[in-house]
Amino acid sequence: VGEFSLIDKYFAARGRARPDVVLGIGDDAALLRCPPGQLLVVSIDTLVSGVHFPANTAAADVGYKALAVNLSDLAAMGAEPAWATLALTLPGEDEAWIAAFCDGFFELAESTGVALIGGDTTRGPLTVTIQVHGWVPPQQALLRSGARPGDLVYVSGTIGDAGLGLAHAQGRCNLDPGVASDCVRRLARPQPRLELGHALRGVASAAIDVSDGLSADLGHILRRSGVGALLELDSLPWSAAFRANAACAEGLVVQQVDGVPAAAAFSLCAGDDYELCVAVNPRNQDLLQDIAQRTGCPLTCIGRIEAQAGLRVRLPGGEVVPFLPRGYVHF
Amino acid sequence: VGEFSLIDKYFAARGRARPDVVLGIGDDAALLRCPPGQLLVVSIDTLVSGVHFPANTAAADVGYKALAVNLSDLAAMGAEPAWATLALTLPGEDEAWIAAFCDGFFELAESTGVALIGGDTTRGPLTVTIQVHGWVPPQQALLRSGARPGDLVYVSGTIGDAGLGLAHAQGRCNLDPGVASDCVRRLARPQPRLELGHALRGVASAAIDVSDGLSADLGHILRRSGVGALLELDSLPWSAAFRANAACAEGLVVQQVDGVPAAAAFSLCAGDDYELCVAVNPRNQDLLQDIAQRTGCPLTCIGRIEAQAGLRVRLPGGEVVPFLPRGYVHF
Repeated sequence: VGEFSLIDKYFAARGRARPDVVLGIGDDAALLRCPPGQLLVVSIDTLVSGVHFPANTAAADVGYKALAVNLSDLAAMGAEPAWATLALTLPGEDEAWIAAFCDGFFELAESTGVALIGGDTTRGPLTVTIQVHGWVPPQQALLRSGARPGDLVYVSGTIGDAGLGLAHAQGRCNLDPGVASDCVRRLARPQPRLELGHALRGVASAAIDVSDGLSADLGHILRRSGVGALLELDSLPWSAAFRANAACAEGLVVQQVDGVPAAAAFSLCAGDDYELCVAVNPRNQDLLQDIAQRTGCPLTCIGRIEAQAGLRVRLPGGEVVPFLPRGYVHF
Repeated sequence: VGEFSLIDKYFAARGRARPDVVLGIGDDAALLRCPPGQLLVVSIDTLVSGVHFPANTAAADVGYKALAVNLSDLAAMGAEPAWATLALTLPGEDEAWIAAFCDGFFELAESTGVALIGGDTTRGPLTVTIQVHGWVPPQQALLRSGARPGDLVYVSGTIGDAGLGLAHAQGRCNLDPGVASDCVRRLARPQPRLELGHALRGVASAAIDVSDGLSADLGHILRRSGVGALLELDSLPWSAAFRANAACAEGLVVQQVDGVPAAAAFSLCAGDDYELCVAVNPRNQDLLQDIAQRTGCPLTCIGRIEAQAGLRVRLPGGEVVPFLPRGYVHF
């Protein structure tokens, strides 16, 4: 089958219709109606086989994750998602692979109300680029640049699970079989925190999603905001699966950081969790607990924004030391 | 240098500021202001090294062309361009290559008023995905689906030059040295027909840009419109360079089509010209001549839309035969 019958069969016929899509797949470009008074929010991300996911990743997981990591960027802006475009480069015409990819992609697209409005399929090494489009009212977007000294630092859910899942999938550690699939699923099917991001409009002073690792991503907030932070290592939110495999995490840390427990260092540097890390003025603490309850998404206070630049951590013994993201290579 | 300093140095600092860009490169997503009452027009296209351009193509030409082929899609919709995102996958951190890529990209971005608003740089086989965003008033977009029997078929500029340029660059033919560089430049630096597309709003009944070859792209108009067409081979607009190298073109046709002169077959199937092919109601013929004059872009009538499905060509002897795009592989 040629490019056009592939597109018709697997892409154009699927996914939800939205009344704001005037013209979708099938012409030189898509035509879209914009809601008045909102800002358009766009983000584009590429996943390369063998770089951003192991080459043997199931096609459905590739489709799901490629959309999820992009929607996670919209979540981190507090935006409501609307549309996606998909540029898919494939080494061959493996219809079963494409069908499975679409199953994963559209599962998430449908549950988040996202319409696929256009794309391009090309021949070459397996690469998936997705651009997502969403909406946020002016002045309500969550930026990286709004953190202020005195703000509290929160992270949603738990961190480190996807990092363990990746190491397990790569054969670099052996997780307890009872929890391995939880971690691998966390890696394969990240859940973009869209509802949480939306709820944090007007509440968080800064936000980012945790894709490269909590310390690296918080570092972007610190640089853009011109501030620093102190994190409490005792407060890092770990899942039961992570706690049960802390020894695995310790074994994966390439470079020891003086005094920092290895499992804590791992969970600060491991990527792919797609949680939100936010800075919040202390006066909004109560609001935050309401939001956690309403969205069913735990929020843990892990530290505080400080005027002094750089990232520091308080060791279990009470000592405060600088912490630079290090010793962990994504894939 | 890491990903972020690369982005800061080569991408974030360059290109025009637009008042509609509330937040550009550097956060989780870009924030954009939409003009009221217009439709958003988006198109995404990928160029893969070794597939869509020879692997030894100059970096500046890759940057220019990757944006040009996307803007050409906006031109084919009659849209006014505004913003671009860039997902760039690179095998290594070759700063000289990136700097040259940016030179080409921003040369065209600046001359067309396009702001780079976001992107992603990843490690992997050289692949360039660009999404462009533009605007068109409702009901004025040029679609593939609007051609009606009796409409005249026009093509802008000349066709076949880029195809000759590609064959020359690949060593598959030897063009006259006096004109070879014209053809190669046509291949490397296509000129998106933005002004022409804009002028054709409300005038053309259907439009497409010629990327895969005139017969293939006109074929999309015919299928989407549920019509056919008859082209006059005598009317195909050839450049002086093409005419001087018609023998080369003839030698490049893999499969002869009975009765169709080989040079004509070549120019109907060769891609990469990025001209516009449009269907126009005969009552708009005079308007079209005004537009050609105003935009400095020649428009040649090459045939007529017919009710009978399929593409036909009139041979120089007067006989009409069916014509299927064939015998030419893009790269």
